[in-house]
Amino acid sequence: MHLLEQLTRQAKIASRQLVHLSSDDKNKAIRHIGSVLWQQRKEILSANEKDLEASRKQGLTESKLDRLRLDEARIQGMITGLEQIAELQDPVGETIQTVTRPNGLQIEQVRVPFGVIGIIYESRPNVTVDAAGLTLKTGNAVILRGGKEAINTNIALVKALRDGLSQANVPEDAIQIIQQTERQTIEHLIRSKNDVDLIIPRGGAGLIQYVLEHSLVPVIETGVGNCHVYVDEDADLQMALDIAINAKVQRPSVCNAIESLLVHEKIASNFLAALIPVLKENGVTIRGCEQTKALFPDDEIETASHEDFDTEFLDLILAIKVVKDTAAAIEHIDRYGTKHSEAIITTNESTAKQFLTEVDAAAVYHNASTRFTDGFEFGFGAEIGISTQKLHARGPMGLIEMTSYKYLIHGDGQIRE
Amino acid sequence: MHLLEQLTRQAKIASRQLVHLSSDDKNKAIRHIGSVLWQQRKEILSANEKDLEASRKQGLTESKLDRLRLDEARIQGMITGLEQIAELQDPVGETIQTVTRPNGLQIEQVRVPFGVIGIIYESRPNVTVDAAGLTLKTGNAVILRGGKEAINTNIALVKALRDGLSQANVPEDAIQIIQQTERQTIEHLIRSKNDVDLIIPRGGAGLIQYVLEHSLVPVIETGVGNCHVYVDEDADLQMALDIAINAKVQRPSVCNAIESLLVHEKIASNFLAALIPVLKENGVTIRGCEQTKALFPDDEIETASHEDFDTEFLDLILAIKVVKDTAAAIEHIDRYGTKHSEAIITTNESTAKQFLTEVDAAAVYHNASTRFTDGFEFGFGAEIGISTQKLHARGPMGLIEMTSYKYLIHGDGQIRE
Repeated sequence: MHLLEQLTRQAKIASRQLVHLSSDDKNKAIRHIGSVLWQQRKEILSANEKDLEASRKQGLTESKLDRLRLDEARIQGMITGLEQIAELQDPVGETIQTVTRPNGLQIEQVRVPFGVIGIIYESRPNVTVDAAGLTLKTGNAVILRGGKEAINTNIALVKALRDGLSQANVPEDAIQIIQQTERQTIEHLIRSKNDVDLIIPRGGAGLIQYVLEHSLVPVIETGVGNCHVYVDEDADLQMALDIAINAKVQRPSVCNAIESLLVHEKIASNFLAALIPVLKENGVTIRGCEQTKALFPDDEIETASHEDFDTEFLDLILAIKVVKDTAAAIEHIDRYGTKHSEAIITTNESTAKQFLTEVDAAAVYHNASTRFTDGFEFGFGAEIGISTQKLHARGPMGLIEMTSYKYLIHGDGQIRE
Repeated sequence: MHLLEQLTRQAKIASRQLVHLSSDDKNKAIRHIGSVLWQQRKEILSANEKDLEASRKQGLTESKLDRLRLDEARIQGMITGLEQIAELQDPVGETIQTVTRPNGLQIEQVRVPFGVIGIIYESRPNVTVDAAGLTLKTGNAVILRGGKEAINTNIALVKALRDGLSQANVPEDAIQIIQQTERQTIEHLIRSKNDVDLIIPRGGAGLIQYVLEHSLVPVIETGVGNCHVYVDEDADLQMALDIAINAKVQRPSVCNAIESLLVHEKIASNFLAALIPVLKENGVTIRGCEQTKALFPDDEIETASHEDFDTEFLDLILAIKVVKDTAAAIEHIDRYGTKHSEAIITTNESTAKQFLTEVDAAAVYHNASTRFTDGFEFGFGAEIGISTQKLHARGPMGLIEMTSYKYLIHGDGQIRE
């Protein structure tokens, strides 16, 4: 554990130097890192080969192996990502507001980096480069704790990143990687309250729960998305069909895809009669409530259990529930949703307003697919994750959400009476 | 524990109704609560008498009894506080920004209540009314968990508050009090992740540490203030003297008072020769570093230990340290400070800039007393606490800091390609 203490301390020390960097310094370093990644691609790819081999032996599925795999094109993709980050506007140093008080005190609220951000994530190695670029852009030091499967790849990537930093005269300790993959290393990180200012866990529900249970450092919870589309009685049914299919089928493995569909009972029969065949064509397994099953007895639809409504399938499975009205839809979402993305399809403005007001989620849609909850689709130009909590950041987190603020107070001798 | 589960659930259900209230509805309810407090003052004062009696038997100090004591004037003060809250601008519903994307999606970021806020605090009963007023104003339900000493007073106050709500047609469950005073009730509250959206602990370091250790609900850490004034070699010494005395003496029991003074070695002898007599006149006990003691051998100054520099005295005690330069002052603050309020006194703009940039605290002052870190002094018109963390809110927390936001996305059938 001594090594880890040293590592968090070094990150903290580096973070103090980052506050002096100009936007230009940071952008140069981000671009330079890209060129070093390219120079060291052979080492990176050979480390990646080691990880792939070990994972094949462990019997990882082909889709997981694919997430882990790097090649020159994917490294080029990382470099392009860094270039895009360099292009973005730097929020650090921005004055949010200035107030002059009757006693002459000038109170300035200024955006500042958090300091040190710990990012705990699972297998995809592109997160390593992306997270390092975004934290550097916002003047934060980062401590990366990636998954076991990608450990050799991540170590090689971070070596290149740190080489890039020191060649650009930025302290290399601003990017740290925890090389040990035991769970205790996570515990150490999330309890290092003196040196770490923020923890962002990105991964499955189990990891996030573990971090919430044990962290002394403030956490931003991300990612788990049990999302719904609700088709109201006043929906344009063709629009509802297109959106439901898009939200389920276009990319089922991501957090902003839907897991359940709620349908108003008045249009359930018509709408589902059109929808079910299209879902089936797209290979979607349907799990229906009793009413759904009763409407389509010939379709041999599986029964949706309480657990089904509570599950983020991340797969071509859709639970369907017929509800008696919008209030019942909202109640269902309230019970099973994870405060991520929810949509209503209706032409009735007052029903839409009720849904938008009452549904408690980061992103609530009227007549659009939930699949747009994403930093790029929102126009932020970047994304470190999607927050499902309400403290600090909600929904897609861009650069601004990776900063804090402080008050600078300029006086000429004011004392309190 | 069953009762507590019911209580948090009821708060959550009430919070859903609060999102429909207009600013006008909320302000009327806040004012009406004030009049009910006045109607029920006899019951409140007699409950307070019970608490005072029990506390006297427990041997509470006179200053603690005074914090606990209510009379008609103090109830009137609570009512005035509510009236001031009613006058403030309501941040809920405000559109923070609206963006129209190339695909026509209109993305609106809107301020919303958190939902349910749990506030854990110690003895002063005015917090009960103040917190209830501020949470209602921001459309949040509140669960209050006050200290044992004030339990009868708090129950009587909350009865009046809830009567006021229901007479104003606001669900009375929007204000809840936990009547049991065992510590497990805190644990239940801070683990009720499904029903509680935010926890604000207000109290001593022990309470805050306990909450951070056990909470599953996001927490805003408040209040602990180990604050410093640093007198630079280029300080206006009269200004430095006035500020140091003000920051230590004017109200030593509050979090924004200073605990330590740092002095540049070049002016230490001069400055301290002027300061020490004034501190003594004001009854301040001085604990000095070796250099301070060596400068004033006749003053029999106590030795400041590592623990002294690490302590929030909240009393007429001041630790003094002579430092070799601004960097050493910043390092000391970094080691011992609690990220609350820090001040530099200097006429040198570049030294001031270094201090303002490098010191990591909610409020960093140049040539003014730390005693101004306060929601009222900052012009917020209210304050629920002073955050010493960097996530979500930093420094004095006003109404805006008691809100979250959500994204409302308006489409006309957009799907993701």
